[in-house]
Amino acid sequence: MIIDCHGHFTTAPPALGQWRERQIKAFDDSGARVSPDELHIGDDEITAAIEQGQLKLQLERGTDLTVFSPGAGKMAHHYGDEQTSLVWSQVSNDLIARVCGLFPDRFAAVCQLPQSPGDALASSIRRSAAELERCVEELGFVGCLLNPDPSDGYWQAPPLTDRIYYPLYEKMVELAVPAMIHVAMSRNPAIQGTCAHYLNGDTAAFMQLCQSDLFTDFPTLRLILPHGGGAVPYHWGRYRGMMQDQGRPPLEESLLRNVFFDTCVYHKRGLELLTDIIPAENVLFASEMIGAVRSVDPETGHRFDDTKALLDSIDSISDADRQAIYGGNALKVFPRLASHVRNHHKQEEVAQ
Amino acid sequence: MIIDCHGHFTTAPPALGQWRERQIKAFDDSGARVSPDELHIGDDEITAAIEQGQLKLQLERGTDLTVFSPGAGKMAHHYGDEQTSLVWSQVSNDLIARVCGLFPDRFAAVCQLPQSPGDALASSIRRSAAELERCVEELGFVGCLLNPDPSDGYWQAPPLTDRIYYPLYEKMVELAVPAMIHVAMSRNPAIQGTCAHYLNGDTAAFMQLCQSDLFTDFPTLRLILPHGGGAVPYHWGRYRGMMQDQGRPPLEESLLRNVFFDTCVYHKRGLELLTDIIPAENVLFASEMIGAVRSVDPETGHRFDDTKALLDSIDSISDADRQAIYGGNALKVFPRLASHVRNHHKQEEVAQ
Repeated sequence: MIIDCHGHFTTAPPALGQWRERQIKAFDDSGARVSPDELHIGDDEITAAIEQGQLKLQLERGTDLTVFSPGAGKMAHHYGDEQTSLVWSQVSNDLIARVCGLFPDRFAAVCQLPQSPGDALASSIRRSAAELERCVEELGFVGCLLNPDPSDGYWQAPPLTDRIYYPLYEKMVELAVPAMIHVAMSRNPAIQGTCAHYLNGDTAAFMQLCQSDLFTDFPTLRLILPHGGGAVPYHWGRYRGMMQDQGRPPLEESLLRNVFFDTCVYHKRGLELLTDIIPAENVLFASEMIGAVRSVDPETGHRFDDTKALLDSIDSISDADRQAIYGGNALKVFPRLASHVRNHHKQEEVAQ
Repeated sequence: MIIDCHGHFTTAPPALGQWRERQIKAFDDSGARVSPDELHIGDDEITAAIEQGQLKLQLERGTDLTVFSPGAGKMAHHYGDEQTSLVWSQVSNDLIARVCGLFPDRFAAVCQLPQSPGDALASSIRRSAAELERCVEELGFVGCLLNPDPSDGYWQAPPLTDRIYYPLYEKMVELAVPAMIHVAMSRNPAIQGTCAHYLNGDTAAFMQLCQSDLFTDFPTLRLILPHGGGAVPYHWGRYRGMMQDQGRPPLEESLLRNVFFDTCVYHKRGLELLTDIIPAENVLFASEMIGAVRSVDPETGHRFDDTKALLDSIDSISDADRQAIYGGNALKVFPRLASHVRNHHKQEEVAQ
């Protein structure tokens, strides 16, 4: 069974984006709120969006299950106030829950968190822990997206290793769910979103973790770095050297029990480097489908984000490692995914 | 002849740093200025710093010439005001000129620019053009460092492709000197300097260039991305796909006539990827010595930043490509380097 650990509902019915625009505008204009009751999306619209989008590509590519979350860029935590982010998160997460309810064998749910920048950060993290609990306990979610920069491009928050985040980590450990560290949009004209802010967020977060003892405090906390870890595997020697210079333990000991890298790297050479440098047990198959890059690579005849076709073409990955990357690791990193899969897949499918 | 295009005077005599501290403190305390005349560094101190530092490593590694600039992190453009940055740049650049005067066969000079963040950006760019002219015309410099984030970690400036930077680019073209795009320190507690801000600066700058027509306006402008281009070569497919999605020309056409990558990547697999993905004519040998990482890699027995030993061990680089990477390209990208070399090296050395 092939599990894609990184997909966003970028193809959500237009009513979602229209509701969000009204929400932002009403607050900006007069501080008014827009009720979630004003959002109307039919099951048929969700079904059509998925069947013509993600499901079609799953079937084409031969992937079985996508760990599915709201559009990451659209989390846009800087808009409005704490209540804005809370209601937007609930609306977005409820929609993901509906997708997974309609296609339980194809999608497992990951939530966005109602983070807010600035003075609201601490209380927004407590609200995030509560929203995570709601999503996991009531809606069957298996993980969350954690934004290291809720200012959306200006890096105004303390590092993720700051104790301000601990209420969330305590809840994650209690619920046995991991977080994918994923920035949202960039509103900074110097930092493009998907090809700069996304990768820089991964790189910055990794270095935050390198310089902390977060995993001493939370030995079972699991964090996933998307987009192949930003610049990290390409600069693995730099990080190894820096840790050695600082007298810290090797990355294998200090980070790799808790930090995982997805395979959203859109060319074979990049994926060869990733799978060569990062131990196979730390690599999770992912495509970010349908996401940042959508067209077909004329060099391969596959879509750029068809990372399965790219990984399939890398002979140096052993069968055991391939099985771990394609699904075995995801079942370990997302402990709740296993029961989701047991509930919705026949035993023989899971074993494959 | 082997040219290292990326070295900083990180081992400058302590008097330099002490003067800088006094400069910052005096301005912060009372807006007072500290005169450059208060800085006293003897030739013997410079000679000792170089002989025990960079020159020793050049001889050990068999590199011939380093393109040498002030400590990049220490440019720290956010301190004080425009005058602070101007005087600090002059002091730093004059010291580099002295190094190159004492060791003309070993070092060619690159200057820092008196950039300033915020409202001072535009006028600081005009001052930068003037300081560049002074350094090139009066002191024989061959290039400059351009900081894409003079706020030092908060990305408050417009992208490098903004017309606000054009007076500098006009001067660079007129003088036939390239810029290395290099951030300074990070004062942002979420963004570590050498392993996060540096790499993120490279990645952000590349994406700024991807989205602009800067090189239509300046067809002969040359920019170098240090640290192997941040995350860029590892994510080359992502950039190729994004450009294709946006209907823009391929990167080879739009950027690679003007943008170059250095080899400051501290493990063999990373350098293999770089030299495999980026055309050899766009790769410049560099080590960032003495810089971010200083110890010996127990896996190789060489220092992490001994990128020459790593490149030497990569068999897939052809002899012609190796010659281009090790020096031929630098002589093209830094047109003024050729005459510097002619003046200070025998013809037979240059030909090697």
